[in-house]
Amino acid sequence: MSTYEKRTYRRLTAETVSQYLAATPALAARLGGAPDQWTGRDVADGNLNSVFLVDGPEGSVCVKQALPYVRVAGESWPLDINHAFFEASYSARVAPFVGRLAPELFHFDPEQFVLAMEKLEPHIILRNGLSAGVPYPQAATDVAEYAARAAFHTSDLATPFERKFEDVALFAKNLALQRISVDLVFTDPYIEVWRNKVIPPLGAWAEALRADVNVKSAVARWRPLYLTKAQSLIHGDLHSGSAMVTPDDTRVIDGEFAWFGPSGFDVGDFIAHYVMAWFAKGGHAGEPAAYRARIAADIAAFWSGYERRFLAIWDASDGVGDGFPPSHFADPAGRARLNSLQRAYVAEIFRDALGFAAIKIIRRIIGNAQIADFLVIEGIERRAEAQAAALALARSLLIAPERFRDIADVIAALPRFATAGLDPLATRNG
Amino acid sequence: MSTYEKRTYRRLTAETVSQYLAATPALAARLGGAPDQWTGRDVADGNLNSVFLVDGPEGSVCVKQALPYVRVAGESWPLDINHAFFEASYSARVAPFVGRLAPELFHFDPEQFVLAMEKLEPHIILRNGLSAGVPYPQAATDVAEYAARAAFHTSDLATPFERKFEDVALFAKNLALQRISVDLVFTDPYIEVWRNKVIPPLGAWAEALRADVNVKSAVARWRPLYLTKAQSLIHGDLHSGSAMVTPDDTRVIDGEFAWFGPSGFDVGDFIAHYVMAWFAKGGHAGEPAAYRARIAADIAAFWSGYERRFLAIWDASDGVGDGFPPSHFADPAGRARLNSLQRAYVAEIFRDALGFAAIKIIRRIIGNAQIADFLVIEGIERRAEAQAAALALARSLLIAPERFRDIADVIAALPRFATAGLDPLATRNG
Repeated sequence: MSTYEKRTYRRLTAETVSQYLAATPALAARLGGAPDQWTGRDVADGNLNSVFLVDGPEGSVCVKQALPYVRVAGESWPLDINHAFFEASYSARVAPFVGRLAPELFHFDPEQFVLAMEKLEPHIILRNGLSAGVPYPQAATDVAEYAARAAFHTSDLATPFERKFEDVALFAKNLALQRISVDLVFTDPYIEVWRNKVIPPLGAWAEALRADVNVKSAVARWRPLYLTKAQSLIHGDLHSGSAMVTPDDTRVIDGEFAWFGPSGFDVGDFIAHYVMAWFAKGGHAGEPAAYRARIAADIAAFWSGYERRFLAIWDASDGVGDGFPPSHFADPAGRARLNSLQRAYVAEIFRDALGFAAIKIIRRIIGNAQIADFLVIEGIERRAEAQAAALALARSLLIAPERFRDIADVIAALPRFATAGLDPLATRNG
Repeated sequence: MSTYEKRTYRRLTAETVSQYLAATPALAARLGGAPDQWTGRDVADGNLNSVFLVDGPEGSVCVKQALPYVRVAGESWPLDINHAFFEASYSARVAPFVGRLAPELFHFDPEQFVLAMEKLEPHIILRNGLSAGVPYPQAATDVAEYAARAAFHTSDLATPFERKFEDVALFAKNLALQRISVDLVFTDPYIEVWRNKVIPPLGAWAEALRADVNVKSAVARWRPLYLTKAQSLIHGDLHSGSAMVTPDDTRVIDGEFAWFGPSGFDVGDFIAHYVMAWFAKGGHAGEPAAYRARIAADIAAFWSGYERRFLAIWDASDGVGDGFPPSHFADPAGRARLNSLQRAYVAEIFRDALGFAAIKIIRRIIGNAQIADFLVIEGIERRAEAQAAALALARSLLIAPERFRDIADVIAALPRFATAGLDPLATRNG
């Protein structure tokens, strides 16, 4: 980590980014030619960073610079800029495991809070692809592969705890973005606060959830889990907005929320956003039934891929982690039992994930950060109905988790909640 | 943390400790008079430190210096010396909460790895007092008070997570002693390894536990709990050897194993050692039945004190922690529910504690670090029988935890296992 110095920090622009790259020989060499042959484009659509794509005669780079404030609010909402450091640290840590499922990081500048990485082309943001009705069957299994590898290899299953606690100590300092996450995800949706954005037809649902002591009790189980379960290095924001795709290539980006936490958080986050895409289908291009069938298949493929790959990686590992010492399970009875312990470990990730998925759905609908999947739905009533359906499923995931033993139960529940409606009492026991 | 420099590190002796204190004005002032009026005594009985008690005309201090090797093995077993830093950090962190339940820390010297603290007089080690048959009814409730305060105030219940993760990051570096703990407590007892010390009559028990896949499966639940549940700052070695007592004063010492982990670990550690004292009663002075009744009462007082105090502290707290935001439970239904959530939180500490207690019992009997409670029993058969009884209870705690819903169930089990005997199969389903 380093300190933000207002005097020396230079906010890059599409014009100045070439000068910056020219001063960094390794990056200049990638672009080739002379700086006046390079073209930079500002493509940022988030709130925390500037992003430029720069093309030269021989190559391209993506340049991402952290901002010392939230872009939409300007300097009135200052922000710790060190999330760039944590994004770079996260990328470097998971790179050996995830390989080409993430863009290659070329460079990190701790004084200008700049990352330079592989420019992805012709990739688009997965969420936008889904909204356009394009099938990305590869994306769900690729992200599952990514999440399973990162979760396994940074956990006590794969590494001596001395190595793990280096990560714990490092990412325990990524606090500024965690404060945003914890407040916006786990707290705000359940109280009345100015930051929440609830569309009027959902007023009854928002009020019902704020008053629902069973829902809040469940949140009070998953919230401490997020804060105390130091299971693996998690991405912290792993959804369809954090993956760039082509039909046959997937890259996970934007690791600035990285955190040492429960592996199920990333899993639940991804499932939540696919579930919302399913309910939001009215706003998407393409034929609704076919679209929904594909999203449902993707959800199933995502979880079953994660589970299968996680277990396969475990089976193939050399057991240097301190979590399950191989010496304890070396005899035939032990080997047989280890198999069921492994399944129990993954089943626990699934249970954790469903709670986080529910909480993520709720925060996207009655909290601050709305998502395009719903925003593109024309007609506020139709949008509210899609959102109400997602809320009804989320509530059920929280208060009746025993009904969701596997991913098939989740998928079977989707149509059941599709017509939940604007009256939260109608599906009270749903 | 600092680096051990062999050139500049000076191992203190009873002779040189006065020179050291003379060079530290604040400590010299405590002692009063001139250095030639001070008398130093070496009283160390552990493996990791030198300990000196120094008396002057106006006052006394206890000086503890970390050794760069394990004392019993000399320089052939080097040891990271920074545990002194973590002990000082732990003392400073919990001091505002535990007050006079710990000795006051006067001084920490990061280059000589020296702590100077309040000399406790006429205190003795609680274990020695118990062995001598002296009742210390105050000790169990005092240690409960200490553990409850430290656990609550360093957890997500009492402090914003930004503060908590400072502790997490700091104590995540206390790795050298954790490696010892993890290996000796969670791994070695279940495999054949040179460090284990099993007396011959216990051979069948040791073999049975090493072969017991149910026991090892249970250990495989509590071991990751120790490594992943970042619930509160724990002492890490909280048993009757880490408390100094008079009949009406109790001080917890020796926090060098401090760790950010499950609150139940300290609770289970303390219970384990009282349980072993109960089974070891034949080796202790005093009338066995009366002694056992007192130890059993102390166990009950310890847990019920912990539970009662933890809940009372929570009720009286101002709710600045991020674990259970008060705003979620502000209405009458919420307040009523919070009460049951609080009880569930403490019940989870209890469940965690019983597993750790069982694992601690096993490591003390078929692992490396044996305890005086058993060693003083004359006659190897008698000693083995007392240890077998403790092992039988420990096995039951691990494989049938549902039988131990509260502390009364544990106490009721003590006499049931007292005659378990040297054949581990005899109590197979006990």
